[in-house]
Amino acid sequence: MKMLEEKLKIDKISKGTVIDHIDAGYALTILNLTGLEESKNLMTIGVNVSSKKHNSKDIIKIEGVFLNETQMQQISILSPNASISLIENYKVIEKKKVKLPSTIRKLILCVNTTCISNSIKEPISTEFMVLEEKPLKIQCIYCERIYKLEEIVFTSKEKKEKKVIQRIQL
Amino acid sequence: MKMLEEKLKIDKISKGTVIDHIDAGYALTILNLTGLEESKNLMTIGVNVSSKKHNSKDIIKIEGVFLNETQMQQISILSPNASISLIENYKVIEKKKVKLPSTIRKLILCVNTTCISNSIKEPISTEFMVLEEKPLKIQCIYCERIYKLEEIVFTSKEKKEKKVIQRIQL
Repeated sequence: MKMLEEKLKIDKISKGTVIDHIDAGYALTILNLTGLEESKNLMTIGVNVSSKKHNSKDIIKIEGVFLNETQMQQISILSPNASISLIENYKVIEKKKVKLPSTIRKLILCVNTTCISNSIKEPISTEFMVLEEKPLKIQCIYCERIYKLEEIVFTSKEKKEKKVIQRIQL
Repeated sequence: MKMLEEKLKIDKISKGTVIDHIDAGYALTILNLTGLEESKNLMTIGVNVSSKKHNSKDIIKIEGVFLNETQMQQISILSPNASISLIENYKVIEKKKVKLPSTIRKLILCVNTTCISNSIKEPISTEFMVLEEKPLKIQCIYCERIYKLEEIVFTSKEKKEKKVIQRIQL
């Protein structure tokens, strides 16, 4: 019985956010990209969990944290089928699906060095048109270069805290 | 009852490894550094979980995966108090504590460019002496430079699969 209680304590959150139906294997990338991994709050993460709807999925539960618009968009790019539930007093008070916008602004870099979004003199914010949702295909509105999900380079704020640094050794 | 079963399914693993008593906030770094994050198997991760022994801790459970020596050493550097349990048929068949070795070979880079471990002509494997365990303090045996945990640069194999790339935008 004691073990059971401990399990429930880990799994249930009293107030916060549940991100469900994340594409299998993307939960850790989402935590990194959204900066949620730096939270000091309780998080429970399931990776490659068996799912009825899809073959497998990831799930993230975070205590006391609600997502902002940027984080919702970042999730929609990585997992267009994800759902977000807001929890209060252990109950779901709101459930919504993430929505991939028709154009993605600022969140992604265009790696084409001659693209005007990379101009040093007059830098402008990047903007990509979503051509296809799944599998994702987006196009830079300036230079018209097309990107698949695995080719995307995300912009990211400098992390407050850098725990460890990894470098690829050749 | 259905919910309860689902929870248990997520939490319990039939065969695999439980890494417990990870220093709070280090689970995701451990998954990244050890390459375990690329596993296609079921993983459950608790971050900032309340703990009796310490104030809070992280925990990782991975189905069907057993750690190798390198992974155990990487964990010992990031979380010297971590314990590793091997699971078979839902039962713990072996439990061990990670052991920080007195010298750490190859896993860490010396960032001192004039250190002979960085010599282009005659590159030699890095080797660090552990001066203090917690908080960690290590010293390069060649150039004698001293590093704290947050200053360490880990070597890492090129990841098989790169899901997304992040670049810091200035």
